[in-house]
Amino acid sequence: MQDAADMPVTRVEVGLGARAYDILIGPGLVARAGDEIARRMAGVRCAVVTDENVAAVHLDALADSLGRAGVEHSAITLDPGEKTKSFGPFERVVDALLGARLERGDLVIALGGGVIGDLAGFAAGVVRRGMGFVQVPTSLLAQVDSSVGGKTGINTTHGKNLVGVFHQPRLVLADTAALDTLPAREFRAGYAEMVKYGLIDRPGFFDWLERNWRDVFAGGAARVEAIAESCRAKAAIVARDETEAGERALLNLGHTFGHALEAATGYDGRRLVHGEGVAIGMTLAHRFSVRLNQCSADDAEKVEAHLAGVGLPTRMADISGQLPGAEALLTYIMQDKKVSRGALTFILTRGIGRSYIAKDLPAAEVLSFLRENHPG
Amino acid sequence: MQDAADMPVTRVEVGLGARAYDILIGPGLVARAGDEIARRMAGVRCAVVTDENVAAVHLDALADSLGRAGVEHSAITLDPGEKTKSFGPFERVVDALLGARLERGDLVIALGGGVIGDLAGFAAGVVRRGMGFVQVPTSLLAQVDSSVGGKTGINTTHGKNLVGVFHQPRLVLADTAALDTLPAREFRAGYAEMVKYGLIDRPGFFDWLERNWRDVFAGGAARVEAIAESCRAKAAIVARDETEAGERALLNLGHTFGHALEAATGYDGRRLVHGEGVAIGMTLAHRFSVRLNQCSADDAEKVEAHLAGVGLPTRMADISGQLPGAEALLTYIMQDKKVSRGALTFILTRGIGRSYIAKDLPAAEVLSFLRENHPG
Repeated sequence: MQDAADMPVTRVEVGLGARAYDILIGPGLVARAGDEIARRMAGVRCAVVTDENVAAVHLDALADSLGRAGVEHSAITLDPGEKTKSFGPFERVVDALLGARLERGDLVIALGGGVIGDLAGFAAGVVRRGMGFVQVPTSLLAQVDSSVGGKTGINTTHGKNLVGVFHQPRLVLADTAALDTLPAREFRAGYAEMVKYGLIDRPGFFDWLERNWRDVFAGGAARVEAIAESCRAKAAIVARDETEAGERALLNLGHTFGHALEAATGYDGRRLVHGEGVAIGMTLAHRFSVRLNQCSADDAEKVEAHLAGVGLPTRMADISGQLPGAEALLTYIMQDKKVSRGALTFILTRGIGRSYIAKDLPAAEVLSFLRENHPG
Repeated sequence: MQDAADMPVTRVEVGLGARAYDILIGPGLVARAGDEIARRMAGVRCAVVTDENVAAVHLDALADSLGRAGVEHSAITLDPGEKTKSFGPFERVVDALLGARLERGDLVIALGGGVIGDLAGFAAGVVRRGMGFVQVPTSLLAQVDSSVGGKTGINTTHGKNLVGVFHQPRLVLADTAALDTLPAREFRAGYAEMVKYGLIDRPGFFDWLERNWRDVFAGGAARVEAIAESCRAKAAIVARDETEAGERALLNLGHTFGHALEAATGYDGRRLVHGEGVAIGMTLAHRFSVRLNQCSADDAEKVEAHLAGVGLPTRMADISGQLPGAEALLTYIMQDKKVSRGALTFILTRGIGRSYIAKDLPAAEVLSFLRENHPG
């Protein structure tokens, strides 16, 4: 373990008034979680929610850190994988939190990736109508996306993330050293979400990533800076629209196509993981914007070239195995929860860093675009 | 059925800024629900959540009303009783709402008493991270208490209402004619919560109830006025402290003792229903305040005389069957979710209409008071 106390840490504030909180980013934060929590929230008791894979690597370090800081804690360890993000494990976590007699001011600590963060956050949001919550994200995707902004939830047979609450954490501790052991494919998938922030409204960040992506993948200061800039980008949007009444929908850039492709591949991570769906989705969103005369072909090509350059898929043809036809993909798109009154809402773009919310897109337009781009 | 359109309706506003909403109170509101909803929320689709008993009396009238107003609707009918307020039925309702493809702007309509309102409100609060919600309370308890203020939730084996969210309705329609068929015992139990508002901070309302309770029980204008004043009282407190950070705890007057007695009788409604527990609890809270030299014995006697006068129980000895001993009752009190860091928080009073939040009460003090008042 690194000597955590000596490491520099970058702080990003999520400005939500009385519910404002800090995101700390840097190596060694798991090992200093106890100090950071005890310093900010004296006297709290904690329940750590994690999965078996993450527990094997990080739970001892976190528990030691809490113990050294005098923070009373227990742990709930779940099966790894997306299946855990469902009603059964949710009820189990809620029951365990009540069984531990935690009070409203006490903390649920989510130690893991997006599945654990979303599930534990939802449980924290409903136990005693809302108790304290700290995110300790251990995947890149969780560090730059799901741990920030307060969206929590579980999946049902009707779709992903359809049940949950907005419940902001009190603190996010993004330990960048935890990413050193991530499989390359998973790191790349998280990287797609970083690129997204550049494409939404930070063209300078996209340029920077084009130049520095090798350093970001290698680790060190460039990685910390890229994660921090991603958190700043997301925090700025969340602060302006916490409950997705408007602008926050921009964070769905690439996600409407991406979710449809995840559903169309049966959420089979061997074929497509979320960040890969987003990479293909963002490329498609740019190409679709070109087709609608909103975006230059040059910009769309730059986006695709960068994503492909780091090793991400960018076309439907890059997905192994058979895909359902264009009509079936349109059906998946129309089932997405961002559909409002049957009209299709898409995030389109006028160029790199110039995304916008397009409402009332005709389904026929989407269908012909899907047909043109379908590999089958 | 009465000719609903001609009936006068009293309006009480719950002032919560962007989430402000109206409570309409009067006879015939079930039959005009469709108009009230269509007028305020054009184009919404609805799912009515109710139980078999309420459905038999009111569902056709509500469905007809929605149909006449052109509001698309479906219904989910659950088993009656407190057991329905649990994880299984909650999951069933959530699943049905998703299956009906309702969107964020659509409505869950809770038609029934507190169990239905709390369960349906919780489901509305988590489907798509919060969808629209309308309360149509059909019991007195629901009309003056649980339908107002946005607390939703379910019970678990660890206790009542320990899992839920704050989710404000968009509209409350309290049809006072629905109370005409309530059993006398149930009406009395709801009446205890009305008295509570007088005792918290409306001494004039307590005086008024002392003089007019027979008219309130008889129905008509006095009943509507008493319900409206109760809603005003609760709305004022909720508007000042939506999420129970402080003052809202006053609404728990009589509830700490009351909940302990409900738990001690195994939530057996044949022995004690919630409002009866609150009546005994309020009497005990006043007597306890006398013992602590906070309240005059005269005021405590006035409170007990009024509650007993309308036929409510006021003493532990009024509960049929054996009660656990004082130590066991203290244990139930300490398990209540209003306990903070082991210190006991009680709502005490300096006299009628002068309740206050007392923190850090020594458990020994509560125990000797319980021993003195225990019938065993």
